[in-house]
Amino acid sequence: MDPYLDAALEEARKGLASGGIPIGSVLVCDGEIIGRGHNQRVQEGSVIHHAEMNCLENAGRLTAATYSRCTLYSTLSPCPMCSGAALLYKIPKVIVGENITFQGPEDYVRSQGVDLNIVNDPRCIEIMREFIAAKPELWNEDIGV
Amino acid sequence: MDPYLDAALEEARKGLASGGIPIGSVLVCDGEIIGRGHNQRVQEGSVIHHAEMNCLENAGRLTAATYSRCTLYSTLSPCPMCSGAALLYKIPKVIVGENITFQGPEDYVRSQGVDLNIVNDPRCIEIMREFIAAKPELWNEDIGV
Repeated sequence: MDPYLDAALEEARKGLASGGIPIGSVLVCDGEIIGRGHNQRVQEGSVIHHAEMNCLENAGRLTAATYSRCTLYSTLSPCPMCSGAALLYKIPKVIVGENITFQGPEDYVRSQGVDLNIVNDPRCIEIMREFIAAKPELWNEDIGV
Repeated sequence: MDPYLDAALEEARKGLASGGIPIGSVLVCDGEIIGRGHNQRVQEGSVIHHAEMNCLENAGRLTAATYSRCTLYSTLSPCPMCSGAALLYKIPKVIVGENITFQGPEDYVRSQGVDLNIVNDPRCIEIMREFIAAKPELWNEDIGV
């Protein structure tokens, strides 16, 4: 298993345990996790702290040189906002836990030069399937539906 | 003049007065301003609170039905992240104060069905020109350069 994806999944589980939407993310630079986060819609009433955004915010202000050596992990295919954040900071690589329950603008992200890989880890799929079945309205709100 | 763009510019000026990057935004629904914000990179040490993101966050959790009646104003052409946020929440209309000093992925946003209009208001151009000349490193950091 990929220890970084495991760390992102651990963030998703933390989010679930605190009543939130179970999506997690980590930012990895030169083999080290330099940011972690999970969706904060419920916990913070936030409309912008998706997992990837929360992770980037927690990583703090970084130089372009640092971002250029980073890989962004997310348990779920990044939505347009989170994809855009990766593009803004020119993060060259994105590892996606799954894109079965939701699919962001992957083709667009790739067209901008990002190396985006889909893992479709069964654990990432399962945690979202169970959550969406339990709280469909909350999920829909999070993806703007 | 457009009173909503004036309100976004007022936000930009607030940001400048507090030592920050002078970009402002308002969210308008049914003729009423329901969110205001400005870039918080300096003030909050934030890498995700661009003006539009800060505005959306301040507007709070809204239904898709509300977003569908909104117009997002920004004093500057929205970057990939902020453009993505508008796409995520399916905000149908975006009014941009200027795109001379910076240009976001406007064609992509339009290709997704958003009615995006560029005003090129001299006041919006001037406040950014002066800021970029004074603090180029801070500006570059904000746009991931």
